[in-house]
Amino acid sequence: MSSVTGTPSAIGLDRLCVIGVGLIGGSLARALKAAGACAEIVGCGRSVESLRRACDLGVIDRYHQEPAAAAAGADLVVVAVPLGAMRSIFSHLRPAVEAGTVITDAGSAKGSVVADARAAFGQVPPNFVPGHPIAGTERSGVEASFPELFRGRKVILTPLAETDYRATARVSAMWQATGAEVVEMGVAHHDQVLAATSHLPHLLAYSLVDTLAKLDDRAEIFRFAAGGFRDFSRIASSEPSMWRDICLANREPLLATLAEFNRDLGRLATALEQGDGGTLLAVFRHAKNARDNLYRG
Amino acid sequence: MSSVTGTPSAIGLDRLCVIGVGLIGGSLARALKAAGACAEIVGCGRSVESLRRACDLGVIDRYHQEPAAAAAGADLVVVAVPLGAMRSIFSHLRPAVEAGTVITDAGSAKGSVVADARAAFGQVPPNFVPGHPIAGTERSGVEASFPELFRGRKVILTPLAETDYRATARVSAMWQATGAEVVEMGVAHHDQVLAATSHLPHLLAYSLVDTLAKLDDRAEIFRFAAGGFRDFSRIASSEPSMWRDICLANREPLLATLAEFNRDLGRLATALEQGDGGTLLAVFRHAKNARDNLYRG
Repeated sequence: MSSVTGTPSAIGLDRLCVIGVGLIGGSLARALKAAGACAEIVGCGRSVESLRRACDLGVIDRYHQEPAAAAAGADLVVVAVPLGAMRSIFSHLRPAVEAGTVITDAGSAKGSVVADARAAFGQVPPNFVPGHPIAGTERSGVEASFPELFRGRKVILTPLAETDYRATARVSAMWQATGAEVVEMGVAHHDQVLAATSHLPHLLAYSLVDTLAKLDDRAEIFRFAAGGFRDFSRIASSEPSMWRDICLANREPLLATLAEFNRDLGRLATALEQGDGGTLLAVFRHAKNARDNLYRG
Repeated sequence: MSSVTGTPSAIGLDRLCVIGVGLIGGSLARALKAAGACAEIVGCGRSVESLRRACDLGVIDRYHQEPAAAAAGADLVVVAVPLGAMRSIFSHLRPAVEAGTVITDAGSAKGSVVADARAAFGQVPPNFVPGHPIAGTERSGVEASFPELFRGRKVILTPLAETDYRATARVSAMWQATGAEVVEMGVAHHDQVLAATSHLPHLLAYSLVDTLAKLDDRAEIFRFAAGGFRDFSRIASSEPSMWRDICLANREPLLATLAEFNRDLGRLATALEQGDGGTLLAVFRHAKNARDNLYRG
């Protein structure tokens, strides 16, 4: 194994295997190539057409459709597939796990990924590091990938007690080479935090657009949508099957945050019914202050 | 009265009075000056400091703090104040109404403005044209105003049966001079459409940010918020008292759309609880299709 350092140009990956060369996997490959951090990148995916495209674009150097073949001889394997496909991919990576290759993932929920790893490998192997880059756009596929996607963004790693710290350091160095800031966190904590800031907003945006698109005067309604609606609803243009997987995978924390939200929204509706402008103003001010502080400067 | 045409440079306003020189009123003044559509603009507002600033910025030519004095001798009066202040401003504009001056407003709800006009004037005068430019940002105040705010955006006018068509034409020509597209619609229809695409999204964004900002691990939660959350929550940075007024003014349509949304969201939560990925996928796809169609090209 090459030495592990935090210096982006010196992470010394001879061969990286990226399973799932879409927005996240493709952007990671592009970023590592741009940083000169990796000699060779081997892609893997279901669609040969998409893998050829990734080769043509220079995102990967070559590909295998078989995960085990793609991972053979790699220093590091990144599994960037939808959550619903994790367990099956993991089960194909037993040879790599047994060879001691460091494996990480990019899934948006970590409890489900840890459960998948346990199911596929019999235990969570010490060379498996659960991870999640907090970056993305509403677009998907290798064509949407770009090398700056992770620059200045956070990547959360959720190593377990049984995880080898050298494996964690290796994955951390890889993400740092993309310009990301790496943070460690517990699995359950990650899943709560992401349910609140990412999964619930997606659920609400999808649900609102679905409701409006069912109304009788939907054509008029959408015709008069302004910039605020455009921004609010942007995440409803995200890939539906990916978000089905995320919602199902992080079901418990998501339902808990949704219940909290529903309670507060119900109170706000009651205030509105009663013409209680003071309560509306207090809630709106609290929200504005919180958001303005978040994005100040 | 000058002749009414749709030609932006020829609307021939000698004097415009803008009551409430904030984001909307200030941007309107800037746009009409930029288009050479108005010889003189008189501002009116509560804060002398803000009116002086508007003069210094060249947004208005002079000001009066008294609405009746500001409106005296104007060809057209635009009332661009928060909905909660409409009735009081209208009651100060009786002399202008009696002089036959065309008056319009820029309020985000139209039923309440029509009720305010009826209360202030005893009836809805034929020279009063209810209007609503569908444009804005989350910022407010004259400093945030800019002449391109209405370019390519829609302005909805909701004239009543008793409205003089020449007054409507005059207001329409004014808005066209800013680069906006003017559309006519019934009062109740306007209020339903805006409840769906603007007022409910604001209520949801405020409510979600409020909920998250009350959670114990709010610091962590906001720390890991990504671009999707930033866009989704942008409208929660809007001016709280303005949005309290809008929600109260458009209460009935807003509560009706909220009830519809809650019903659908409840179904989605049930599907999630039951692990029913098919329902999640169908809703997410329906929403994505609707939004992608809306913002295509």
